[in-house]
Amino acid sequence: MDKVPGKPESTDGAMPSLRDVIAARPHVYRHLRPTPLYRYSGLSELLGANVWVKHENHQPIGAFKVRGGLNLVAQLSDKERASGLFTASTGNHGQSIAYAARAHGVSATIAVPEGANPGKVAAMRGLGAEVAFHGRDFDSAREWVMGVALARGGRFVGPTEDLLIHGVGTYALEIVEDLPEVDAIIVPVGAGSGACATCIVAKTIDPRIQVIGAQSAQAPAMQMSWASGKAVSADMNTVAEGLATRVPFENTQRIMRKYLDDFVLVEDAAIEDAILLLLEHTHNLAEGAGAAALAAAIKLKHRLAGKNVVLVMSGGNLSVDQLRRLLGRSGSSARAR
Amino acid sequence: MDKVPGKPESTDGAMPSLRDVIAARPHVYRHLRPTPLYRYSGLSELLGANVWVKHENHQPIGAFKVRGGLNLVAQLSDKERASGLFTASTGNHGQSIAYAARAHGVSATIAVPEGANPGKVAAMRGLGAEVAFHGRDFDSAREWVMGVALARGGRFVGPTEDLLIHGVGTYALEIVEDLPEVDAIIVPVGAGSGACATCIVAKTIDPRIQVIGAQSAQAPAMQMSWASGKAVSADMNTVAEGLATRVPFENTQRIMRKYLDDFVLVEDAAIEDAILLLLEHTHNLAEGAGAAALAAAIKLKHRLAGKNVVLVMSGGNLSVDQLRRLLGRSGSSARAR
Repeated sequence: MDKVPGKPESTDGAMPSLRDVIAARPHVYRHLRPTPLYRYSGLSELLGANVWVKHENHQPIGAFKVRGGLNLVAQLSDKERASGLFTASTGNHGQSIAYAARAHGVSATIAVPEGANPGKVAAMRGLGAEVAFHGRDFDSAREWVMGVALARGGRFVGPTEDLLIHGVGTYALEIVEDLPEVDAIIVPVGAGSGACATCIVAKTIDPRIQVIGAQSAQAPAMQMSWASGKAVSADMNTVAEGLATRVPFENTQRIMRKYLDDFVLVEDAAIEDAILLLLEHTHNLAEGAGAAALAAAIKLKHRLAGKNVVLVMSGGNLSVDQLRRLLGRSGSSARAR
Repeated sequence: MDKVPGKPESTDGAMPSLRDVIAARPHVYRHLRPTPLYRYSGLSELLGANVWVKHENHQPIGAFKVRGGLNLVAQLSDKERASGLFTASTGNHGQSIAYAARAHGVSATIAVPEGANPGKVAAMRGLGAEVAFHGRDFDSAREWVMGVALARGGRFVGPTEDLLIHGVGTYALEIVEDLPEVDAIIVPVGAGSGACATCIVAKTIDPRIQVIGAQSAQAPAMQMSWASGKAVSADMNTVAEGLATRVPFENTQRIMRKYLDDFVLVEDAAIEDAILLLLEHTHNLAEGAGAAALAAAIKLKHRLAGKNVVLVMSGGNLSVDQLRRLLGRSGSSARAR
């Protein structure tokens, strides 16, 4: 299994805990407010359940990951602050580190693969990060920037570090605080930090709260690894870059194996239908990952009937071109019903 | 001038004050959290200024008006609570009253004109309101429901009542609290409650804060009345229903005459371009009114250069059909640049 380098993830099998999430809150809420959890009558009718959406798309970078970045950067040593941060990303993780670095006056270098989404690159640069293009995919960019960090004595930030999971868990705690009667939380899985954080919080508070992961069937590595109990790499062709994991991450796999109740795959076409349904019923723009929870809920409709269901809208960074293409498909929004 | 009936608007010329807005806060924050004020680097580059967006589209009904509804309904007498609320609306005002009525366990009857936006009607019904279709336009629906309210001894709610303005002002106070160095706030004008509330708050705190109204050139009645100092009705053909005022409202006109620094008209086509620019740079969906402030800022670009500018994104309730039509226009988003 691909052990992703960086700072302490798992130390002797210790796992992130609810206490770690509570400890992250001051670092997160120094810069962010809690996001809304809204019930939508249209989605509730559609699913025959009480359906709530957790609006992580309302974050300043348009995605939940900023919570993790803020927690990590707040706890850097003076030496790490001085040396600056180095990470690799094709999207929201890079924006998270760039945002947190700026908030704390620390420099950030983000490696992105050649051909990375220009909108996300512009956003990282707009936040003051140095963006370097290298290699043809995420792994190549990551290996290169690790070398740069080593050469410069900088702090490399891995994508599933415990401090990121602790910060991300603050959204899960908000869900349970706002809706103590929640029955099920459906959360998209890319590298798995959101799903792990949600499991840790919800299962510690009440093991009866169901936590269900959702990933694209066109990028099933994390789901297959979870289901089989061993690391499985898989083809990765999803249009939802937030779900685009080809090689599973050990740190998040072991947490999901312990806590996650179920993990479903949804077709990219169902995710695209869900983007349109969310636009119609919530007037919020979701990126593919942000709509995957609704696609999974539609697939699990029978099982969720009558329950209090929370869909995590993890992010909203869909490009206008992607949206135009989706809206141009005829009759697509009818298909999901 | 059309004196809109309902409960106390202006009593002996007294105007809503900052103190009224502060007093409204407990009623508003019992049910809502403050909305984000985010700076966007892409919009800042576009305008050559520091540009912030106040995200009233993040409200549970997708629009700022819910603040006013909650303040009004919280202060009903027992008799009014028992008799229920009656109002007319084609959109967000009706959703606001429906939301607040449900939150306080009060019944609400909303009159809408025949052919009203089905999505907004469904939203009102989803919030538990009784929706009655009557007449071919807003004024006809309003007169009819006033008769019903009178016959049943119910409480009619006018669209610009002082208690609504007090509640709405809480967003303006959030702006100044989050960004004390604000130079200019641009706010869309429909009936004018948002612009009035913003004026009262900003000008009381510091008269040097510029408050600028924006309305569609295809519905210029409020702007023409403000500019000429007398009530002027005008043709109304805008696609932005949140700006669609045909007959000016006296209560909001007198406040705007006293406080508003400027009031600009923007073409519907410029508003539609602004919707696309907001999608691209903020990944938020704005309805026409919600994008009017950006359209006005583009028109005033020279004057705003280098300043700290807040654009009020008043609402996001654009239908998927409207969005599909906008995205189908070729090269439209390039036009605004």
